[in-house]
Amino acid sequence: MSTFRNFKMVDYVVFGRGAFGQLDGILAPRRQGGAPMVFLVDHFFRDKPAFLSRVPQRGKDRLLFADVTEEPSTRQVDGLRDQIRAECGAISGIVGIGGGSTMDLAKAVSLMLTNAGSSADYQGWDLVTRPGVYKVGIPTLSGTGAEVSRTAVLLGPEKKLGLNSDFTPFDQIVLDPDLIAGAPATQRFFTGMDCYVHCIESLQGTYLNAFSRAYGEKALELCRQVFVEKDGWDGDSDERLMMASYAGGMSIAYSQVGVAHAVSYGLAYVLHTRHGEGNCIVFDQLEEFYPEAVREFRGMLQKHRIELPRGVTRGLSEAQVEKMVTVSLGMAPLWANALGEDWQRKMTRERLRALYARL
Amino acid sequence: MSTFRNFKMVDYVVFGRGAFGQLDGILAPRRQGGAPMVFLVDHFFRDKPAFLSRVPQRGKDRLLFADVTEEPSTRQVDGLRDQIRAECGAISGIVGIGGGSTMDLAKAVSLMLTNAGSSADYQGWDLVTRPGVYKVGIPTLSGTGAEVSRTAVLLGPEKKLGLNSDFTPFDQIVLDPDLIAGAPATQRFFTGMDCYVHCIESLQGTYLNAFSRAYGEKALELCRQVFVEKDGWDGDSDERLMMASYAGGMSIAYSQVGVAHAVSYGLAYVLHTRHGEGNCIVFDQLEEFYPEAVREFRGMLQKHRIELPRGVTRGLSEAQVEKMVTVSLGMAPLWANALGEDWQRKMTRERLRALYARL
Repeated sequence: MSTFRNFKMVDYVVFGRGAFGQLDGILAPRRQGGAPMVFLVDHFFRDKPAFLSRVPQRGKDRLLFADVTEEPSTRQVDGLRDQIRAECGAISGIVGIGGGSTMDLAKAVSLMLTNAGSSADYQGWDLVTRPGVYKVGIPTLSGTGAEVSRTAVLLGPEKKLGLNSDFTPFDQIVLDPDLIAGAPATQRFFTGMDCYVHCIESLQGTYLNAFSRAYGEKALELCRQVFVEKDGWDGDSDERLMMASYAGGMSIAYSQVGVAHAVSYGLAYVLHTRHGEGNCIVFDQLEEFYPEAVREFRGMLQKHRIELPRGVTRGLSEAQVEKMVTVSLGMAPLWANALGEDWQRKMTRERLRALYARL
Repeated sequence: MSTFRNFKMVDYVVFGRGAFGQLDGILAPRRQGGAPMVFLVDHFFRDKPAFLSRVPQRGKDRLLFADVTEEPSTRQVDGLRDQIRAECGAISGIVGIGGGSTMDLAKAVSLMLTNAGSSADYQGWDLVTRPGVYKVGIPTLSGTGAEVSRTAVLLGPEKKLGLNSDFTPFDQIVLDPDLIAGAPATQRFFTGMDCYVHCIESLQGTYLNAFSRAYGEKALELCRQVFVEKDGWDGDSDERLMMASYAGGMSIAYSQVGVAHAVSYGLAYVLHTRHGEGNCIVFDQLEEFYPEAVREFRGMLQKHRIELPRGVTRGLSEAQVEKMVTVSLGMAPLWANALGEDWQRKMTRERLRALYARL
């Protein structure tokens, strides 16, 4: 008999336009005496005073900007943890406000405030042993599903791998579609495509049940509504995309991503390509695996006037390419989901090297 | 600015065929010393020894049958609470195994083991002040959405109304489609139609946002797949119906039911008509409110060879009818959702009396 994951859900969800205005009231009962809340905010908002003034800081609360120029790393998490300990002492909680990287940073920092050592020690499955501090996720970009996932993906000294555990999901998420309205169109596209790509990968994969299928189908339908069917972008698009991201994240409970993510992980490890953009660069070259979806994807690129970077692996050393191949082939469950249990016969090092050369 | 409900989710969900077999392992870390688990099982299973032998009883665990011949009541909840206290003392948790009535009984008994007084004192919104004992919901009928809701609907001395609170949702649900495979077809239909009807009511209502729309649309699509499109019933139908019920329950977060539920509440209060069946009896007469859906519903009745009870209000006294009308009109948010804020001008006592006379 199969064993099914006992999926830990986010405790509280509030969804609605303007829901961000409820944050002060939501945090109030979670404040422990004078211990501050830490707001970890995507540095994109550094020069957005109108938004920053809406962050409900009280007393000794701290607002820190998260530099998400590169993918979040174990070093960055450990550094933030040390900084918060030194500057704030014990805190009431951490509130991540931003895209998937900021979500993952907030989750990881929460856990590292209560679990000893370096976050690199916890990259893997169920290695975290204690609940983190109270943590809240507030997305300002939609698509990754990080708001509902049980992982916080980090670049470590040896691997790009998440802190996967039942302690990782947020205690609270605030889904306010107005917050994603100001995202730059290219960034919105790349992040939104993370959802599209993982739905294609999971729905066409070999690991799937009715729970994940229902969520994956809904997420894909919502992605298509906003990126394929609608002309232009409006408030309704923000609502649908935010819901697509949530549903796409939930669909991962009993499914797995596939070729695009496996290849993109290698790219990220060696070139530090950001996740959404990396997935797009890779997916564009996967016609042999996902023919119809890749055609649809190219239509979306055209419609939204997105220029994908080309030739990103040109000029890499042989050692760098070999590292990419090794990192990617290490993602066994992704390959098995995409190609079946005999994936190793189908995806040889040679074939993968040729795929990287095309990117 | 509107205020959106901060929705408390179920903590853990496991979904999959055969997942019931994981229950022993799921309960293990929740057992507190020798304190027993109480399994509250729908009395339908009284003569199903093969199923009963799979309930993972250990040590001093107790298995109690829940008589769900009638809708669950505050008296029944208080009685079960007293019985458990007298026979078991402190318990590790309560596991409800059955349909929506058993789910609601388990949730309510859990709360009444830690909150003083009678469950009738807590019928309403956010009156419960303490977490209940650990509670698990395992549906053997799908459609009500009780497995994910923040209410436990009870017939009380004065009203049919739920214990609505953040403490009401289950700590754990086990969604095993194999468990609904043995349900009698008529019961399965009535319970499944609860989902269909509340999706129609919420999607056509005036209270709705993108979160609830996404869940409601998915639930409705799954209901149509199993009750309209598919010929015959198979394991795939069980999976889809179980997922429809879950999604339909989630859709209630930011939506509201409508005319069928409002009218059916009056019926239940006076005649003790069971919820799913009552909704069907009422919905069949609501062509003026939901014309297309009522036609689709009648097609499903025919396809599944369901004979609805007719003339159920015949012979009632005038006082009984007036009571029905009063109970139903007391459900203000349901009427406002269905007919708009000026619903009282549209749904007069006379009009509602005439509607009851047709049932």
